Amino acid sequence: MPDPVAPRRLPSVLLASLVPVASWFIVRPLVDPVPPLPALHVSFGLSIFALLATLYLVPALGPSFAKANLKGRDLLKTYNTPIPESLGLVCASVYILVLIIFIPFAFSSISLTDGHTHHEGIVVKEFPHQQLSVYLSSLLSLLIATMLGFLDDVFDIRWRHKLPIPILASIPLLMVYYADRGNTHIVVPIPLRPVFGTLLNLGPLYYLYMALLSTFSTNSINILAGINGSEVSQAIVIALSVIANDLLYLPWPVDFHIPLHLLGGQAEVEVGGVYSAGMAYGSTELVERHLFSLYFMLPLMGVCAGFLYHNWYPARAFPGDTLCYLTGMAFAVVGIQAHYSKTLLLFFIPQIFNFLLSCPQMFGLVPCPRHRVPRFDENSYLLHPSKAVLLQPPSHLGALVLRIFSALGLTELTIHPKNGTILECTNLTILNFLLLRLGPMREKRLVQTLIVVQIAGSVVAFTVRYGLANLVYDGDRR
Amino acid sequence: MPDPVAPRRLPSVLLASLVPVASWFIVRPLVDPVPPLPALHVSFGLSIFALLATLYLVPALGPSFAKANLKGRDLLKTYNTPIPESLGLVCASVYILVLIIFIPFAFSSISLTDGHTHHEGIVVKEFPHQQLSVYLSSLLSLLIATMLGFLDDVFDIRWRHKLPIPILASIPLLMVYYADRGNTHIVVPIPLRPVFGTLLNLGPLYYLYMALLSTFSTNSINILAGINGSEVSQAIVIALSVIANDLLYLPWPVDFHIPLHLLGGQAEVEVGGVYSAGMAYGSTELVERHLFSLYFMLPLMGVCAGFLYHNWYPARAFPGDTLCYLTGMAFAVVGIQAHYSKTLLLFFIPQIFNFLLSCPQMFGLVPCPRHRVPRFDENSYLLHPSKAVLLQPPSHLGALVLRIFSALGLTELTIHPKNGTILECTNLTILNFLLLRLGPMREKRLVQTLIVVQIAGSVVAFTVRYGLANLVYDGDRR
Repeated sequence: MPDPVAPRRLPSVLLASLVPVASWFIVRPLVDPVPPLPALHVSFGLSIFALLATLYLVPALGPSFAKANLKGRDLLKTYNTPIPESLGLVCASVYILVLIIFIPFAFSSISLTDGHTHHEGIVVKEFPHQQLSVYLSSLLSLLIATMLGFLDDVFDIRWRHKLPIPILASIPLLMVYYADRGNTHIVVPIPLRPVFGTLLNLGPLYYLYMALLSTFSTNSINILAGINGSEVSQAIVIALSVIANDLLYLPWPVDFHIPLHLLGGQAEVEVGGVYSAGMAYGSTELVERHLFSLYFMLPLMGVCAGFLYHNWYPARAFPGDTLCYLTGMAFAVVGIQAHYSKTLLLFFIPQIFNFLLSCPQMFGLVPCPRHRVPRFDENSYLLHPSKAVLLQPPSHLGALVLRIFSALGLTELTIHPKNGTILECTNLTILNFLLLRLGPMREKRLVQTLIVVQIAGSVVAFTVRYGLANLVYDGDRR
Repeated sequence: MPDPVAPRRLPSVLLASLVPVASWFIVRPLVDPVPPLPALHVSFGLSIFALLATLYLVPALGPSFAKANLKGRDLLKTYNTPIPESLGLVCASVYILVLIIFIPFAFSSISLTDGHTHHEGIVVKEFPHQQLSVYLSSLLSLLIATMLGFLDDVFDIRWRHKLPIPILASIPLLMVYYADRGNTHIVVPIPLRPVFGTLLNLGPLYYLYMALLSTFSTNSINILAGINGSEVSQAIVIALSVIANDLLYLPWPVDFHIPLHLLGGQAEVEVGGVYSAGMAYGSTELVERHLFSLYFMLPLMGVCAGFLYHNWYPARAFPGDTLCYLTGMAFAVVGIQAHYSKTLLLFFIPQIFNFLLSCPQMFGLVPCPRHRVPRFDENSYLLHPSKAVLLQPPSHLGALVLRIFSALGLTELTIHPKNGTILECTNLTILNFLLLRLGPMREKRLVQTLIVVQIAGSVVAFTVRYGLANLVYDGDRR
């Protein structure tokens, strides 16, 4: 019988063929004619390298992690072999290194379009120090988040204590935002404009909002964990959604020429052109914001995809809290810096659902066991909803909440046959909810279901953002 | 008998009285009249808070570190009780947090002097994005150094493998330096000018120099370790020397008025004034550079002083590699960003001596045991030079080097009485050298001697810098 946790083998030849592709994207901006969006080419090339580095480093460094006592057993397996944990640190290191190496490509003269070339539709007349500060403060926040995530793994901080930790990581963002005299105005939804006007200055509340956003995005990914691949697959679907949204705003070069000369005409008719495509409609600022977002999301996709290969069922490596902190903070960073935090939150619909569902257990209304992962049946290999035992009858509020959740089909209660008190409830997480509604299933099927739910959430998000948002916002969607 | 490693008690009342002092320095710039150098006041106030935070947090968090297996036994003591290790992480966290909180004070409108006020002699007309980028890239490098130091502690990387690690931490510095089109010219010493001219563009070599500087400063502090307080006391003496050097360049408000009106005169005679004092002689750039350096050195002093209290003989907490990485990188950052790397290297005279002395063991000419700390005599409590045993006769080169070192009094050899081969040598470190020359002494006395050596080195450094440097450089000393 093969070792169940031996590192998954890599298709080396296939991967090696990616090296020239990635290299080409990186050197492409140096070759005339300079492509539109040169820095984006480099970012894409570096992201492929990030993917390769993660694919190779995770199995290579796994034994060192296990040796340093960073290992855990897989709760939902028949075997007991410890599996290296906190490998999210490898992803984070590769990610941040790539983002640092990217600095000269994004911010030095190579990729600055001159006043007379309009490739990107972005004309940067002088060195973009302001964007560089913002970029660096984002990197600082990511690095602090990584550090805190890793400390969390090493010191095993109690989870109720660690809820506010991501706020620390958001401080560099907030400080540079403040030092930069950042905008604290929001566009007021149409129905509220008679009261607040079109623009409302939130002032200090805006900083509170930014801090809470990073706390939410980090913790909401962290608490939707427990089965192989759950953390990193959420991150991948959200990152892909963000990338898809960013791409809508780029000045796509879809200017096509109608070849009238073939019909004997003199002039060509040009349709489209720079700014003709995309939702930016000529706003340099919007294009720059979404480029900024892509620079952070593409390499994140790279490291997450590389990690998923080893974290996929049956997992050969665990992400640890480090990966959740990293990905959560990365989403907060782009949401804040590229000013689309409301759109971002729409991509977190499953996480918001899971968070709301978890509240009664997180805030002590219902007892919360240390692990809330589904229960594994060693005979059938099926996962069943796990249950929390209520050693004493719940408070009136707790009982009320549980009965409402039960009526909504969110949990299943075990009731004392005589006095009617609640003895048990299924743990209040989206994983147990899915098992409750769809019936017991194997772990691999459950993570696939979770991915489908996450994708469905993103479809809803796009519908709301580009459909329903018109009802409460006018054209000024920033 | 009291617990030999119980946390040292803090003089709480005394320390509490520092809180209003520190607070005053932080709010002082908000009170009219705005003092000259307002941001420096804030930096000083924050540094006092850094001192207090380190003093309290190191003993408070020690048990958590020990619990996470970050502990070690003190090799030079009679007791075996494990002592919390890697507490440099606490220093680093406090330090970096203080530097982040400082951002709005240094870079927002509060502390920017208007065009018409000349308090600092520095007129900043617009938001200093350029300095902010440099500041943030420095923070990134410090944070990466901290992270790598901590990883080194957790994974216990073999020391020959970890020599190049600090280069990774210097990448953000180099990238932003490059993106900023940083200056890569050096002023050529007068004797070499016929060959190279006055200014020489080193180009890529300058980046190599910067990377090597950070590697050297980090590792040279790290290898001068082994007795209680040695790492942090070196850092303190170097930091104080850097601060003293920075203060020379500030526009001291020593303009004094000769009160001629008391003698019946009409006008006052004003001597001095902004720029009249200090070595900057009116150069805004020089003042700004040394202010930048002070912003990093003052809080470093704070955390190091706080940590020394607990690390002083007999140590209650160990710094781990984290502290060495942090302090080494902090010195490299200011040396590079404030452009006085040659002066900085002068403050490393004892480290350079220790490094050169260590070379034969580091590069394998002479066997190198895992620990080269002095040998502890449990009866007399005295430290003696420790010895490396040469299991096989050294190479010709190795024997030659050892005999030269022995003739210079740098090591003591044990020679086979018959065939004259070298059997043993004292380990090649400055600590063993001091014990060899000054005789066995207790650990506390040895660390005091080391501090005296470090201070003597700084005295030599100042003499060379402001005396002898005139022989090879003219006025343009940058």
